[in-house]
Amino acid sequence: MKIDNITAETVQKLEMLLEELLPESESQVVSAARYSILNAGKRIRPVLLMEFYKLCGGENFKGALCFAAALEMIHTYSLIHDDLPCMDNDDMRRGKPSCHKQFGETIALLAGDMLLTKAFSVACGADGIPDDRMIKAIEVLSYEAGENGMIGGQEIDLAIENKEADIEIITEMYLKKTSALLVCACKIGCILAGASENELQAAEKYAESLGLAFQIIDDILDKTADEKQLGKPVGSDDKNNKSTYLSKKGIEASRKNAAELTQKALSALEAFSGDKTAVREITLYLLDRKY
Amino acid sequence: MKIDNITAETVQKLEMLLEELLPESESQVVSAARYSILNAGKRIRPVLLMEFYKLCGGENFKGALCFAAALEMIHTYSLIHDDLPCMDNDDMRRGKPSCHKQFGETIALLAGDMLLTKAFSVACGADGIPDDRMIKAIEVLSYEAGENGMIGGQEIDLAIENKEADIEIITEMYLKKTSALLVCACKIGCILAGASENELQAAEKYAESLGLAFQIIDDILDKTADEKQLGKPVGSDDKNNKSTYLSKKGIEASRKNAAELTQKALSALEAFSGDKTAVREITLYLLDRKY
Repeated sequence: MKIDNITAETVQKLEMLLEELLPESESQVVSAARYSILNAGKRIRPVLLMEFYKLCGGENFKGALCFAAALEMIHTYSLIHDDLPCMDNDDMRRGKPSCHKQFGETIALLAGDMLLTKAFSVACGADGIPDDRMIKAIEVLSYEAGENGMIGGQEIDLAIENKEADIEIITEMYLKKTSALLVCACKIGCILAGASENELQAAEKYAESLGLAFQIIDDILDKTADEKQLGKPVGSDDKNNKSTYLSKKGIEASRKNAAELTQKALSALEAFSGDKTAVREITLYLLDRKY
Repeated sequence: MKIDNITAETVQKLEMLLEELLPESESQVVSAARYSILNAGKRIRPVLLMEFYKLCGGENFKGALCFAAALEMIHTYSLIHDDLPCMDNDDMRRGKPSCHKQFGETIALLAGDMLLTKAFSVACGADGIPDDRMIKAIEVLSYEAGENGMIGGQEIDLAIENKEADIEIITEMYLKKTSALLVCACKIGCILAGASENELQAAEKYAESLGLAFQIIDDILDKTADEKQLGKPVGSDDKNNKSTYLSKKGIEASRKNAAELTQKALSALEAFSGDKTAVREITLYLLDRKY
């Protein structure tokens, strides 16, 4: 099965929903949010959310898609704020000027705030999902994006800037900065479908390993990828003097580690009795990606 | 009834809950959030939320208080981000250095993001409130804080900077920038208590008028108040060349307008059959405040 065949339906429906949620507007803030979120990324988090929803037997795809859109809004807000001058000060994102380069710093700040805020009303609009599952899913969304998840990872990233960090700290940073929103995707898919506690734990294990692998591959691509294909300058980790898995372990050990983590992620899927073909394919694709 | 007697219990319980939700931490981001939110403001929004909850017969004060804390977190995030250099660039807030002056711009940005994010998991923790009411309340929280509410007001504020704005635009800005979170407080209090549609509409009317009066009084205080008592420099609207109700209408007409709006707010309370004494007192206090 080709990866595009797996992701195409979710991606297409997601784009339509995002267009509907953020229609063209005179507002600069809304326009900036549209600019950033419709700038088609890989949509990995929404795709994983929907695939875990299916894997656990969920059938209300329209309802689950609201959470997929909410999660993508949170992911996009984090990119907008990360690119700001007081953070990573990145001028390019996915081959286009970053949000603040296009709309100015103030509008970019507000566009990020708006996407983060709106994510929760979008989640609340998931018709037909039982109320208790919605609340549990909203709680996970907030938790994994917060100080114990993504924002916590950001803070570690800042704290170790221009410093030598050991591999434990780097791993904790990856788990929070990258794995947290993937955990969020997989767990929410499970929760909305009414999965068991056992399945929830397996989803978390899967996503933690996947996130670590994903980030290690990102580090490798930052050194080796084609700049045009990657959509942003390569070598930024070296330039910013960042401690990464790669800088600590070298390229061969990093590649090996990413492959092992991918295997670990695949093993975690054994807990699910449903058809795992699609999730497996996505997992392998993410290991092999070139950008 | 003295205003302190009305607000004391909510304020005290709120402080305790906030201490519990944001305990002392090695994290700079959490410390910055604590610094800003424990820097006791008037807590008007939490107080109004709790008073409307009581007015509509609510009895699960502990549950409702979670939403009060969530709302105060959103209010505090908005102050942190508003004070940032790319926004209003304010050095002082409530008599102390603003968050970015104390912790730096990056940590302040993340502390704001964190408070906004965490507000929603705090709301989800409201034990004993029926699930359907929780979801409705979370939706209102997100809506009023978003591009149709508070963030929309921020955008108007930026758009009319250094420009002559007419009174309609200024009113729309006040309704979004200031009324929206008050509407949020009063409506959520009603929703959590299971109020009728009629009561919800009355709460909205009340809070819209109250917010306009509140903002007009803020404009007047910015010109006339004692700097030390206000906790921030006076004259900032003139300095920033801001169009305000006051700059358009003058001080006498503004005072009269604030009093009329306060009366309008009080009239809206007629829709409620419960004991309105406390809400009335708060309303009159806000009109007469000196800082």
